[in-house]
Amino acid sequence: MFNVDFEDTIVAIATPNAIGAIGVIRVSGKESLNIVNSIFEGKNLLAQKSHTIHLGKLVAANEIIDEVLVSLFIAPNSYTKENVVEISCHGSPYILNRVIELLLEKGCRLARAGEFTQRAYLNGRFDLSQAEAVADLIASDSQAAHKIAMQQMRGGITHKLAELRQSLIEFTALIELELDFGEEDVEFANREKLISLLHAIKDEIYRLSSSFKFGNAIKTGVPVAIVGKPNAGKSTLLNILVQEERAIVSDIAGTTRDTIEETLTIEGILFRFIDTAGLRDTTDVIEKIGVERSKETIQKAQIVLYLYDSSQENKTEVVQALNVIPKDKKVIVLANKHDITQDAIIQNETSTDWIAISAKENTGIQTLKDLLLQKVLEDNNTTQDAIVITNQRHYEALQLSEQAIDNVLAGLQQQISSDFISQDLKTALRHLGSITGSIDVDKDILATIFGKFCIGK
Amino acid sequence: MFNVDFEDTIVAIATPNAIGAIGVIRVSGKESLNIVNSIFEGKNLLAQKSHTIHLGKLVAANEIIDEVLVSLFIAPNSYTKENVVEISCHGSPYILNRVIELLLEKGCRLARAGEFTQRAYLNGRFDLSQAEAVADLIASDSQAAHKIAMQQMRGGITHKLAELRQSLIEFTALIELELDFGEEDVEFANREKLISLLHAIKDEIYRLSSSFKFGNAIKTGVPVAIVGKPNAGKSTLLNILVQEERAIVSDIAGTTRDTIEETLTIEGILFRFIDTAGLRDTTDVIEKIGVERSKETIQKAQIVLYLYDSSQENKTEVVQALNVIPKDKKVIVLANKHDITQDAIIQNETSTDWIAISAKENTGIQTLKDLLLQKVLEDNNTTQDAIVITNQRHYEALQLSEQAIDNVLAGLQQQISSDFISQDLKTALRHLGSITGSIDVDKDILATIFGKFCIGK
Repeated sequence: MFNVDFEDTIVAIATPNAIGAIGVIRVSGKESLNIVNSIFEGKNLLAQKSHTIHLGKLVAANEIIDEVLVSLFIAPNSYTKENVVEISCHGSPYILNRVIELLLEKGCRLARAGEFTQRAYLNGRFDLSQAEAVADLIASDSQAAHKIAMQQMRGGITHKLAELRQSLIEFTALIELELDFGEEDVEFANREKLISLLHAIKDEIYRLSSSFKFGNAIKTGVPVAIVGKPNAGKSTLLNILVQEERAIVSDIAGTTRDTIEETLTIEGILFRFIDTAGLRDTTDVIEKIGVERSKETIQKAQIVLYLYDSSQENKTEVVQALNVIPKDKKVIVLANKHDITQDAIIQNETSTDWIAISAKENTGIQTLKDLLLQKVLEDNNTTQDAIVITNQRHYEALQLSEQAIDNVLAGLQQQISSDFISQDLKTALRHLGSITGSIDVDKDILATIFGKFCIGK
Repeated sequence: MFNVDFEDTIVAIATPNAIGAIGVIRVSGKESLNIVNSIFEGKNLLAQKSHTIHLGKLVAANEIIDEVLVSLFIAPNSYTKENVVEISCHGSPYILNRVIELLLEKGCRLARAGEFTQRAYLNGRFDLSQAEAVADLIASDSQAAHKIAMQQMRGGITHKLAELRQSLIEFTALIELELDFGEEDVEFANREKLISLLHAIKDEIYRLSSSFKFGNAIKTGVPVAIVGKPNAGKSTLLNILVQEERAIVSDIAGTTRDTIEETLTIEGILFRFIDTAGLRDTTDVIEKIGVERSKETIQKAQIVLYLYDSSQENKTEVVQALNVIPKDKKVIVLANKHDITQDAIIQNETSTDWIAISAKENTGIQTLKDLLLQKVLEDNNTTQDAIVITNQRHYEALQLSEQAIDNVLAGLQQQISSDFISQDLKTALRHLGSITGSIDVDKDILATIFGKFCIGK
């Protein structure tokens, strides 16, 4: 499909580069079997079947580098559809790098990030949206994100777009045919049917692109800011929210979470509490929510938790403070220390959700979690198992194709000539096709897409 | 051999717990095939041959958790000699943990650190010293450490000790036989031959245990302290030493070095420059080498580099400062800024090595590297490919068996009764046997040995 140099045999470490029990090196390309065989002491790998595993030694100049298991995948029955060899080594970065060096010497080239998946795509194993889903799947860190990535990898969006494009292609062909009979003023394409089809497609595109806000939040986690005066109890609340989860996570031995921010999963949806310097700084002397730092936190958030000490602050002040929060943010007001001020009547005095909690006594927390979840799910205009867009590139392509379809509709109304309509239809088709890569996708775009992958994938 | 509960089927993530292209989960035990098969959608794994790979889906309650490759190793043709299944997943910690949870639900138990290797040992795949070498191999981060670990894993020390023990066992049997004829005062064991054998064994044990200092330095890296006055140029020197290596390392894409200290490999031997707060603190006001912090650095080091500014400090001062360094340390004095003081005659005024360098102009650095290497190699009393001890436990066992042999020799000289001699011989045999685990090794010791492994190995 593109001018990729398939003569190369590529190699990379496919497992995280750290000490572990096992480290896997992946080799793909025409020469992969020959190259690995040339440093392998054991059976002749060239005489073995696909999908078999062989124990042996990797040797360089009489030095044994490792005792390894070699897995063979013979083209086209492999991830890349090329000959693939996976070498399972002892998980020492030193050994893995030695083996890589040796393979480079023998004629392999280091794979770029995502290059195995890129080859899989270019060799027709899956389309572009599925390839992108592989990266999403690897990055997924919640049940909801995992589900959407898995759906996309298994061709969810592919099938949906194929439907839309097919009907559009048929009409475009008819319009093109009219151009061939340009002098004769014939209409092969029924204009009414075309208009109704275009509206149906527009609806579908609209549904898909409006799922992006929800989809993107699911994929990257829902950003939540906790703001309020220094002693309102922000740290305590955050600790309570994430504590339980921490305990569960650390139950599984060997699990480490390299998060730089606090996260919480509710019903499979990930919430990211935006960490600003002030967030846990209880000695912070900043007294008002209006300060720059809080503003920035709020700007990044989709949901804002405004926490106040109900035993100290009065509600009028709180309502005033809320005015600073931009209108497009979802706000939940938390009246903390409700254990002390039990008599305070908490009610919805603004259009904002207003709930009583006690961070200290751990009350109201479940209500808060339910409300957080509800705030996210209300953005979900899709039904169960509907296709959800999570990818900025897809979103933009959908927007552009919608625009082109609008142009077609306007042209039809103005009864402009078929060749202009044909142009716009082809533009719409091109943008829809760019999502799955059914049409040629620009080399730079491919580089961007696959550049985001891990090395070795 | 021990009372391990082999009824359990154990599971662990075998690759480092981070995002990567591939993550591998390892399952070992009687039920491993049945358990994995129960969540696998694809071929019936129970009907497949050993050393084959199968593509399929892992499913839980109709949800697809991942598309995976499953590798089968049927007992006894596996690492642990049990049925082993390795599942190659997309390298998402979320997915890996989901799969682990699912396998635990289906009846697996989380493996303890090193438990796969422990089972391999208990099932007779290899002896204890070889099992320990697996951990050393994974931890090896230089060519020399790798070579020694590989040698040990491949049975180097095993064969050597087997020789020693065999001849000792024969003599012990003869002495024991004498005990059965206790009344008759017979001597089946030729005392002279025994004494000469014991001396030969003692020599061998001495050779092995005296290789420990060198072996241990190779395994863990040779600790080097750089000391000297604040402006002598310590940081510049350190940078020059490690810079080149950095460049090489970062050439291999995806390589990360999580070192908390600066390291340098010369001819395959790793040198660790001990990082103390002062080491790079050029604004440090501490003026004398005698201060506490430098003393500690020196205490930990095997080699001390004393750096001074030859354009500022005079040699008499330097010689005085050197007196503070304990006599068991190897010292190299570096007269820095030799580019400025070219006329200064550098000569060996003490028994210490004294070389001229210019950190700024990068001269004398190769001489320094050669000297560092020489300092380490002069500890190596072994010949090429001789067995080198790198393990504290082995070293201690060798010391104890040497002691027992000394007791036997003393006993023979004093012509004490055969049963005492027999006791001491058996003590020597026990200690020698504990290295390879040829005799029963205490459960706690095993727990300590395997507890140092990674999870999943």
